Amino acid sequence: MTRTFALSIAYDGTDFAGWQVQPGQETIQGTLQRAILRSTQQDVTVTGSGRTDAGVHALAQVASCRFATWTASTDALLKAINSRLPDTVVVTEVHDAPQDFHAIRDAIGKRYRYQIQVRQQRDPFGHRYRWRLRRNVDVAAMQSAAAKIIGHRDFASFESAGAARKSSVRDVRDCQVIPAPDYETSGHLAIEVEANGFLYNMVRNIVGTLVEVGYGKQTPAWIDEVLGQKNRIYAGQAAPPQGLFLKEVYYRPGFLPA
Amino acid sequence: MTRTFALSIAYDGTDFAGWQVQPGQETIQGTLQRAILRSTQQDVTVTGSGRTDAGVHALAQVASCRFATWTASTDALLKAINSRLPDTVVVTEVHDAPQDFHAIRDAIGKRYRYQIQVRQQRDPFGHRYRWRLRRNVDVAAMQSAAAKIIGHRDFASFESAGAARKSSVRDVRDCQVIPAPDYETSGHLAIEVEANGFLYNMVRNIVGTLVEVGYGKQTPAWIDEVLGQKNRIYAGQAAPPQGLFLKEVYYRPGFLPA
Repeated sequence: MTRTFALSIAYDGTDFAGWQVQPGQETIQGTLQRAILRSTQQDVTVTGSGRTDAGVHALAQVASCRFATWTASTDALLKAINSRLPDTVVVTEVHDAPQDFHAIRDAIGKRYRYQIQVRQQRDPFGHRYRWRLRRNVDVAAMQSAAAKIIGHRDFASFESAGAARKSSVRDVRDCQVIPAPDYETSGHLAIEVEANGFLYNMVRNIVGTLVEVGYGKQTPAWIDEVLGQKNRIYAGQAAPPQGLFLKEVYYRPGFLPA
Repeated sequence: MTRTFALSIAYDGTDFAGWQVQPGQETIQGTLQRAILRSTQQDVTVTGSGRTDAGVHALAQVASCRFATWTASTDALLKAINSRLPDTVVVTEVHDAPQDFHAIRDAIGKRYRYQIQVRQQRDPFGHRYRWRLRRNVDVAAMQSAAAKIIGHRDFASFESAGAARKSSVRDVRDCQVIPAPDYETSGHLAIEVEANGFLYNMVRNIVGTLVEVGYGKQTPAWIDEVLGQKNRIYAGQAAPPQGLFLKEVYYRPGFLPA
């Protein structure tokens, strides 16, 4: 009898061509599947809750996978897989899941974090994990603009081409612009967005648009206009991938063991 | 008339073959000299306060260099050099220095920081900057042992082969084992060592030795024995390079403009 697991995975996406397996490229999914094959001799498909792009990171990506046989503990499986992973990818949790658990289909929401460094000198230890802005930003204006993103809306203006979706309406539950406690000296700023689902490049497009407001090129009220146009060309440029982290994936309460 | 500058430089040493220029290898010194040549058309030797090894980082390396001609401001020079440096190397300060300033000869001390992660799960975002220990350590025992390192002593037991020195006596002014405020959850621990000068691999040999004490393989009193032997074979193994940061270089007060 097969056994289905839910994995929680953290990774530094800098040196990977994104989540999804692609011929001739190092991907997170391919790296995980190879580690599982080598450590358990089982050829398993690891289904992520979503495909992160090249250079995008995860603090807690969730993936489902079904094993033909695994009679040892979840902890033994976690250790086995981690023993074959590179330093940049780690399985942080393994849980038994319902037989038909599917990490994409069963997800009811996600939270992303986007990290920015404003104007301070380049940080050689942070460039893999932050978008560095060349000019100061008006944080209060960005916070006002972010509040306008929240709600049940058509986010077509924030969807990059390339993905087919039935609808571009999403429920954004939270959108925060969060300066670090030491913002004055570090220039560290994060933008967190939580929604029931995301369109292609939606977070990076939102971040790029909020930065236009931060630079004073547009007012917070402009966000309503952009949303109303339902056309990608009205929003700001997409922010680069290195600042983006998939922070959390949500499932129905009790659906996955804690 | 030539003009001498003192540069302060931060770098992520992970992808470099150390500080010093070596044929066919990417080094920090080589990268800086090439950036200066490209941005100022001057072929300048950049003399660091010391040679960091492959994989070792710097928060504030100091280097001296003499320009045949530079009539613009120090800030213009800083911007020119940084415009040609990769993301992993940044010149954080440029100061005018006395004509004969020499970053090695004039240094009166240095402080290194060594970063450890104890036992917690692998951190894909931290592996470039921390040595990960597989077992718990006794922090209080390591702190007692560290206190025994401080003083004017012969550190021959902590000197790796490969460097010719007149004397292996050094004045260690400080040696601290510092758990992070969130140590219980993060496992982050740092060891900082300050001295008037360091022998080859001295900090990494001290750290490896303190970890032996932390593991309970030796008592803090063993440090006195190791020092007394004046022979490298009595100390612990060298800690790996990725945890080590050159944190500060000291010069005589007033010798360099602040």
